[in-house]
Amino acid sequence: MSEPIRVHIDLGERSYPVVIGDGLIADASRLAALLRPALRGSEVMLVSNDRVAPLYLEAVRRALDGLRVDEFLLPDGEAYKSLAQFERLLGLLLERKHSRATTLIAVGGGVVGDLTGFAAACYQRGVAFIQLPTTLLAQVDSSVGGKTAVNHPLGKNMIGAFHQPRLVVADTRVLDSLPGREFAAGMAEVIKYGAIADAAFFSWLEANVRALRAREPQALAQAIERSVATKAAVVADDEREAGRRAILNFGHTFGHALETCTGYQHYLHGEAVAVGMVLAAELSLALEQVEPEVPERLRKLLAAFDLPVTVEPILTAPALVEAMSRDKKVIDGRLRLILLDALGAVSVSERVDGAGLQQFLSSRLPAAGQRSHG
Amino acid sequence: MSEPIRVHIDLGERSYPVVIGDGLIADASRLAALLRPALRGSEVMLVSNDRVAPLYLEAVRRALDGLRVDEFLLPDGEAYKSLAQFERLLGLLLERKHSRATTLIAVGGGVVGDLTGFAAACYQRGVAFIQLPTTLLAQVDSSVGGKTAVNHPLGKNMIGAFHQPRLVVADTRVLDSLPGREFAAGMAEVIKYGAIADAAFFSWLEANVRALRAREPQALAQAIERSVATKAAVVADDEREAGRRAILNFGHTFGHALETCTGYQHYLHGEAVAVGMVLAAELSLALEQVEPEVPERLRKLLAAFDLPVTVEPILTAPALVEAMSRDKKVIDGRLRLILLDALGAVSVSERVDGAGLQQFLSSRLPAAGQRSHG
Repeated sequence: MSEPIRVHIDLGERSYPVVIGDGLIADASRLAALLRPALRGSEVMLVSNDRVAPLYLEAVRRALDGLRVDEFLLPDGEAYKSLAQFERLLGLLLERKHSRATTLIAVGGGVVGDLTGFAAACYQRGVAFIQLPTTLLAQVDSSVGGKTAVNHPLGKNMIGAFHQPRLVVADTRVLDSLPGREFAAGMAEVIKYGAIADAAFFSWLEANVRALRAREPQALAQAIERSVATKAAVVADDEREAGRRAILNFGHTFGHALETCTGYQHYLHGEAVAVGMVLAAELSLALEQVEPEVPERLRKLLAAFDLPVTVEPILTAPALVEAMSRDKKVIDGRLRLILLDALGAVSVSERVDGAGLQQFLSSRLPAAGQRSHG
Repeated sequence: MSEPIRVHIDLGERSYPVVIGDGLIADASRLAALLRPALRGSEVMLVSNDRVAPLYLEAVRRALDGLRVDEFLLPDGEAYKSLAQFERLLGLLLERKHSRATTLIAVGGGVVGDLTGFAAACYQRGVAFIQLPTTLLAQVDSSVGGKTAVNHPLGKNMIGAFHQPRLVVADTRVLDSLPGREFAAGMAEVIKYGAIADAAFFSWLEANVRALRAREPQALAQAIERSVATKAAVVADDEREAGRRAILNFGHTFGHALETCTGYQHYLHGEAVAVGMVLAAELSLALEQVEPEVPERLRKLLAAFDLPVTVEPILTAPALVEAMSRDKKVIDGRLRLILLDALGAVSVSERVDGAGLQQFLSSRLPAAGQRSHG
């Protein structure tokens, strides 16, 4: 096994490392050496779900041998990223009398990480938190930036906090067992980092489709490192999401609307972002702010990972515009979209109003009342 | 009406003013001049309870004339400082499509302020928040320090966040209608600030019992100003409660245990803190770290405001010790108590263990199984 890569997330006193490597979880002594200095006290609450737990929890427990370790399992699925589960987790922490010196360790994907982070943010007004992300999406996205949240029936991620972890361990070996669709959904976010900030990385991804699809550990580690480093640079500039950090939402305003309109049943998050990025790139082209090859290369790279690149025809433009108007990125009624200027360069635009957006989306979708049932 | 007093809470970019004056809420143009610059956008959610709302909400609405103002009312009582009400409030914000630029304004006592602040901390990961505290306790205590929270069935204030308001308006006139017990409970916290940090203020309080009991606006404004300024100085040193801020918990570890053991039914928070401060002062005397006159003067000043100064004999020492062991201030099993060194000077002590505490409390309480039914 090669040496793990460390990316330092520089946030002043909230700085922490993301450690990326192959087989980090299975190697108990190595994992212990990573985890133990990051604990605040001697109490630990492991949080996972009932699909991930049988695969990795025993290994994590070995690395924490001798400490007071409790365990909280969620059922698997986005539906459990809820206030009800948040309350259950806090209840267990109280029942077991965890103090302010406890450390919550999330072992799982985005749902487990976001819920655990939010619980860590709120338990006694803030306790320590470590992430062991087990999906590619969580490794490149949710584990950097400090965003934690649960869903509300009226909107995804609407209840949350900024709370930084003390350590993230991204083990590329866990990606071996990741279903194909989930792997691809993570690749959508990886591709996003190239598109918004790093043209050379975008080209590297185009050149390494085969190695990445084969999940070769070294290619994966490089892709994760570049993604995390890009996100870290953006977040370090703007921890509380006042300005530049908005560029990370490239594809997400469209993507969230797609997810909302399909009740979060049809698309994985990364799939919706893939379609959203294509829409944002096409809108950038329609506004004549990018060359035609830009949306073309983006579409092609996403498709190479079997990601969707067109909107499902069951959706309508008015429904999408309505959903977008409810997005967190709407400030005082103005829709802020992240558009491409070139590969590796984006800008925040308020040029497009609701009517313009509806016109653009209508050109890509059937009108209301003409829904296809294909 | 005299000019309002402004106390500047210095927290870097999270700094804000506490404005103290007589009749500030009833004067719509004055209130508007205070509130409007503190709003983030043009959306407002007023939060209050069904006892306070009829008294003040119309006046606050007048000051916000022309803005988009929604309203959320809680039933009155500590029982509603719950995750369920938090979820209802967030649901209303989403239903009415409040954006990140919304401002939540709490009009009420500690329950309304703590719940509103926690909702503001979590809605879309943080929106603006203003407090119009309508009890003395909220004016001197909950409105400074950024602590927000809701209760969990297993513990008070166990779910929360640090989230600073952008403005606090403390109108002394609202205290006219405050029930006597609630006024006294607020005075307990005022007295605390003298006891922990300001011997001259403590003496001033002893000399001004009559004016304060008569709720003379100028005496009240001075008491609030000194309390807020003391708390602000402590909080500015230690926003996230790592060290010095702990001194604000003088009387609170005992007080919370008293509240827990009586199911939050018997004592108002300030009443429990009054008894807790006497216990802490008596323990300081038992440990020979203060002169006998210190607990004596503290007891006398509290009693002058009709506050309780002895433990109800229905409680037992083991139950109190058990409740104290569950307190947030317990770190890795060690109980940290705030003890007096003199009037105006406290220190954090870990000298007393569970057994010592039980012995001390037993000397003030009947043993288990000998509960009085007086």
